[in-house]
Amino acid sequence: MDNLKPVRVNRNRLETNLQALAVYGHNGPSKGITRPFGSQADKEARAWLSTLWSRHLELQVHTDPIANLWVTIEGKENLPAIVVGSHHDTVTNGGMYDGAMGVLLATEVLQTIQEHGIQLRHPLKAVSFSGEEPNSFNVSTLGSKVATGKLSTEDLFEKRDNKGTVLFRETLHELGGDVGLLTNAIITNQEIGAFLECHIEQGKKLESKGLSLGVVTKIIGIYREKIIVIGEANHAGTTLMHHRYDALTAASELLLVAEKAIVACKSDEVVGTVGYLQVEPNSTNIIPGQVEFILEIRAVDSPYKERIIKEITKGFNEVAARRKVEVQREVILDQAPKPMNAELMQALEHGANQIGEQVARLISMAGHDAANVSDVTRSAMLFVSSVNGKSHCPDEFSRIEDIAKAGNALLEAVLYLDRKLD
Amino acid sequence: MDNLKPVRVNRNRLETNLQALAVYGHNGPSKGITRPFGSQADKEARAWLSTLWSRHLELQVHTDPIANLWVTIEGKENLPAIVVGSHHDTVTNGGMYDGAMGVLLATEVLQTIQEHGIQLRHPLKAVSFSGEEPNSFNVSTLGSKVATGKLSTEDLFEKRDNKGTVLFRETLHELGGDVGLLTNAIITNQEIGAFLECHIEQGKKLESKGLSLGVVTKIIGIYREKIIVIGEANHAGTTLMHHRYDALTAASELLLVAEKAIVACKSDEVVGTVGYLQVEPNSTNIIPGQVEFILEIRAVDSPYKERIIKEITKGFNEVAARRKVEVQREVILDQAPKPMNAELMQALEHGANQIGEQVARLISMAGHDAANVSDVTRSAMLFVSSVNGKSHCPDEFSRIEDIAKAGNALLEAVLYLDRKLD
Repeated sequence: MDNLKPVRVNRNRLETNLQALAVYGHNGPSKGITRPFGSQADKEARAWLSTLWSRHLELQVHTDPIANLWVTIEGKENLPAIVVGSHHDTVTNGGMYDGAMGVLLATEVLQTIQEHGIQLRHPLKAVSFSGEEPNSFNVSTLGSKVATGKLSTEDLFEKRDNKGTVLFRETLHELGGDVGLLTNAIITNQEIGAFLECHIEQGKKLESKGLSLGVVTKIIGIYREKIIVIGEANHAGTTLMHHRYDALTAASELLLVAEKAIVACKSDEVVGTVGYLQVEPNSTNIIPGQVEFILEIRAVDSPYKERIIKEITKGFNEVAARRKVEVQREVILDQAPKPMNAELMQALEHGANQIGEQVARLISMAGHDAANVSDVTRSAMLFVSSVNGKSHCPDEFSRIEDIAKAGNALLEAVLYLDRKLD
Repeated sequence: MDNLKPVRVNRNRLETNLQALAVYGHNGPSKGITRPFGSQADKEARAWLSTLWSRHLELQVHTDPIANLWVTIEGKENLPAIVVGSHHDTVTNGGMYDGAMGVLLATEVLQTIQEHGIQLRHPLKAVSFSGEEPNSFNVSTLGSKVATGKLSTEDLFEKRDNKGTVLFRETLHELGGDVGLLTNAIITNQEIGAFLECHIEQGKKLESKGLSLGVVTKIIGIYREKIIVIGEANHAGTTLMHHRYDALTAASELLLVAEKAIVACKSDEVVGTVGYLQVEPNSTNIIPGQVEFILEIRAVDSPYKERIIKEITKGFNEVAARRKVEVQREVILDQAPKPMNAELMQALEHGANQIGEQVARLISMAGHDAANVSDVTRSAMLFVSSVNGKSHCPDEFSRIEDIAKAGNALLEAVLYLDRKLD
């Protein structure tokens, strides 16, 4: 760190890499990217990234048993590593920034440090986690879950895809992983002292403040219930209105009860969604006999969540009694909010200030690999402003100026942490 | 007609035939029957019925180009035929009476007349129409639509099933039909002077009046709209509640607006249903961007229908404006109510009275082949009481006593019409 001129990332190279990776899984002009875990596009993206790391950075790529991809620049001292990274998979018809940007910023930080001949005290690693997005195996943040001991060989050995035709272990094998050795993918705070994930915000908070960058204070908790409404399927012509037990009109009321309870919190840190709903038998001339839906609530403070659940329970019971339908509820996910590490948050703020950027502190309303990693070691996230807040769609966009700023803030934060952490 | 003792159908034979036909497509103990148009079960049921008609009745079975099955007992005079019949296909997991009962009652009427050596003035035909129920080709009352000129070779030549893999004309060919010759299946009032269809009520009106039989005055009109709600798909975590254009919560409101408008008519002759609804992209963590559903309204009197559509339009526009979503509506069916023929209704009542039965006059809330046939020639329907009003489900049931009464009333009506009609 004896340079007089500050070290900066290469914006053109960063932009080129973003465009190059976006080729894999691209659905054509004005369309999005489909690169889910285990797809042909996933394999191609992994091959491209491995080539970039092994040829351009001349680092040896390590594929762990869950197929997370790692590279390491060794440190001068025997200290836990500093890790930067994100994921390279996408949702169906998603954008080119979610995940990919974080991996390529990590790449850029390593390459910049390398080409300036900077020798760090800590090992510095880049990582691209496997299967962060929802996929056909119904597991999201797959790579970080396994790496933090939340999913084991036992959980995944017999797992199949949605259609029951593809074995998870075979897909993993094709990616270079090995379901029998998952304990070898587990990370500890002895090996890794800090994890920094840079990601697009996917919301409008930074944009509305006119800021390029934000530091995440907490990753929101996610609560999901599977709800089954059981009415009675019957002939849509011959069954009088007052003889009906229509599961779909009942479910419609339940959705509005839930929406009302969520909106009533009047908080920007509480959202709730029914994204999935299935009608049985789903035939024009048969009164719906059963409706299944998944209600998701994301709330930062638990009292909000409890209040919503109380309101919903009251409303659901009233609707069930009045319409004489059965409402079955099952909690399928109840993930607590994850606070980020204060030292790392401060390092990211310091990094941003070094390049003259003000940052906002904000809550992540989306789940991320950093939420899992925070259970094991210090973790923090840097957000980049999303234009119009759009994400998980072809219109997802962040400006290259803002992305380059994130790269430099991340670089400064790494240099700062390398001095501070032991 | 010189017998002193009245001619009566054979109840045991009727019951045996009902059980025998119910074998084809049966899904196992306590389960229903699945015998849609073109299925293996359809083919087996046709083969069984053809054998019954050709061996037991010694009549030559005629399969017309749309694969409707016909048999004829010739008359003494050159007059249009009297036809009795229904259909032998079923919905998915349906019951053993809907359709099959009418075909076997027709069979029983012909066989009873034959074995008593009764020589009618008119030809007497039994018919089993093809594909009355909804099926994978999305055409219901198929056989009677073609027979009354509502569907032509041109309409059906290139038609494929839901999945786009099966050609309609190939399925029809397997059943003995020929899509190129559909004009030859068309019936006229020169050939057919009367059509009597006996069917289960599928509702609770007869049961609540303590009656076995009913005469249908009208077959209800069916109106269907395909409605597409267009919102904006977005991230379920990062999109604030007041930045959402959720197509599913909007659709929920629309369903309740429609239900309210239908119930407000306070008429047992008005029902409405949303049986089909599809969410896009239907993923737990994405706000629904689009919802498609089909709204069906069945109303006897047009003013009711108009009033409901007016209310719905008002409500839909209000929801669309408030939630800033687009609501696209398309009328996909608008079938007028079909009045039944007064002379034939009177003949059925006369027939019931001959066996000491009181009958109710009632409206059919379901569509039937008789609705199509009524466009071409005199048509009427006799309803048999449904226990608990259940239909299109394994619990569908009518008592054999009531079914035998229907057979005798039908027989008496045929003998009466044979005397009256020219």
